[in-house]
Amino acid sequence: MKESVLIVGSMAFDDLEMPYGTFNDVLGGAATYAAIAASSFSPVRVVGVVGDDFPGPVLQQLAARGVDIAGVERAPGKTFRWHGRYAQDLGSRETIHTALNVFADFRPKIPASYATSPYLLLGNIHPALQLQVLEQVERPKLVVADTMNLWIHTERKTLGELLRKVDVLSINDEEAKDLTGHGMLRKAADEIRALGPKRVIIKKGEHGAAIFDDEGVFFVPAYPLEVLRDPTGAGDSFAGALLGVLAGLGRTDGAAIRQAMIVASTVASFGVEGLGPERLLSLDRPALAERLQAFESMMNYGGPLPALP
Amino acid sequence: MKESVLIVGSMAFDDLEMPYGTFNDVLGGAATYAAIAASSFSPVRVVGVVGDDFPGPVLQQLAARGVDIAGVERAPGKTFRWHGRYAQDLGSRETIHTALNVFADFRPKIPASYATSPYLLLGNIHPALQLQVLEQVERPKLVVADTMNLWIHTERKTLGELLRKVDVLSINDEEAKDLTGHGMLRKAADEIRALGPKRVIIKKGEHGAAIFDDEGVFFVPAYPLEVLRDPTGAGDSFAGALLGVLAGLGRTDGAAIRQAMIVASTVASFGVEGLGPERLLSLDRPALAERLQAFESMMNYGGPLPALP
Repeated sequence: MKESVLIVGSMAFDDLEMPYGTFNDVLGGAATYAAIAASSFSPVRVVGVVGDDFPGPVLQQLAARGVDIAGVERAPGKTFRWHGRYAQDLGSRETIHTALNVFADFRPKIPASYATSPYLLLGNIHPALQLQVLEQVERPKLVVADTMNLWIHTERKTLGELLRKVDVLSINDEEAKDLTGHGMLRKAADEIRALGPKRVIIKKGEHGAAIFDDEGVFFVPAYPLEVLRDPTGAGDSFAGALLGVLAGLGRTDGAAIRQAMIVASTVASFGVEGLGPERLLSLDRPALAERLQAFESMMNYGGPLPALP
Repeated sequence: MKESVLIVGSMAFDDLEMPYGTFNDVLGGAATYAAIAASSFSPVRVVGVVGDDFPGPVLQQLAARGVDIAGVERAPGKTFRWHGRYAQDLGSRETIHTALNVFADFRPKIPASYATSPYLLLGNIHPALQLQVLEQVERPKLVVADTMNLWIHTERKTLGELLRKVDVLSINDEEAKDLTGHGMLRKAADEIRALGPKRVIIKKGEHGAAIFDDEGVFFVPAYPLEVLRDPTGAGDSFAGALLGVLAGLGRTDGAAIRQAMIVASTVASFGVEGLGPERLLSLDRPALAERLQAFESMMNYGGPLPALP
């Protein structure tokens, strides 16, 4: 039987200024992207907060995908909103405005029905809140956490406490550098692992992702697309799909994580082809299977290597 | 029997301003790096030009590695010199000064003994000179060419003529974008392939390299290092090792090219650990074999993937 993934994090609306137009009220948030991606592979439980402006049908759409929304709190006020502007090549973006709204007072409350969730994704929220989540659940089989530069710079001590309690830290290359001062990923990963996580996944956007653990280093590329439409949430889709696959398989070992990273990178590649999570929501199994096959050939060199000349 | 690689390109001295010090008179040039890398795997022939200041012992050092230096012309004047300054993280560099010196009048003259060279690497020189090389040799089994932004912008027509005559174009991501206007690598590669080359290799520095051909896309990461010392010549070492392995194996097929790319990325990873080509020159087979094994595990996911949950 497939096991469940518990995802804790932000749910939001994004106002996106893209080179090809401006789009308001796009469904967003790390937990939203991760939940949609994970739900292709396993049952998902979400803990987050939305305002009274959040449309019921959107929650129903998640529920219809197998996402348990009992942990989504509806608070008086407006939903978290992020307004961002992307550069011409979509390779970078700036935040124009962040309105935390109901997210400012978010204190994750884990429903009793979620207390035993074998796979846990701690989205990028204050590390004190991530710790509060861990206090409310039985120790999951696998805890994966994300964080961000803000907490690295302002909540170093609490973040350190969190790191001692997670199995995998999944962050991007800039964050790894900020956390350790090392621009060389291997050094950064070694240092992060010394702080607690047995494995570190470093996401490099269009350049793929790498995991560093006792078994060595493993690398997944990003699938080369014809068209990139919206990179928002790509890292969250990656993390969500990773956990979803592992929960669906009921595995936490290094080999399974490596295979799940390939699926996760493939899922994320679909995500960035659409605005917001639209392409993730429409993704079906045949399309995924076809691209997974191309993805595997991208890594297939007919190994092991023959003797060198 | 191993076949020979003919390498045509620049030989130089570099003055390198690194964050950790300034180093003058460092051996450099695309042909130099490529020849050193290739000579680990097959006999190499070099066509280039040096000034009367170029030390004989350096040429003898190349010869001792199995590099035929009959095609290295010694012209009156000074050797080509590049003065560059690297950024703190070595991720970018600026040219402080270029002194073409004897390279300004370089007209590649292929010795009669080189006329049948089954593997040809046309380093980044004026495309008219690259064409002149092709006119002086029997059609090789494999022609790989490099180019640069200068020729893309100023010699588009001649470059177009060259592209119709090469099998593989090996350039970096910026050059691919400059050549086609497409930032998405797949689109850029498709467009370049429509201009002639059956295969396009796009080098992405610390992010690895990808090949696009009729067999699909294949990706090699860059090996994650503890310490990066000097990225100068990494792309040339990659191309040289690629050709060296293929010549050593006597193969030109897609599967062999993919395997050779893994070796080439591994060789290039050694190159950037030392200043100039020093680490390439000291690289031995056991060290290469050990890193190759780690490199393979970086791509090994125990594939094919199991059924998705």
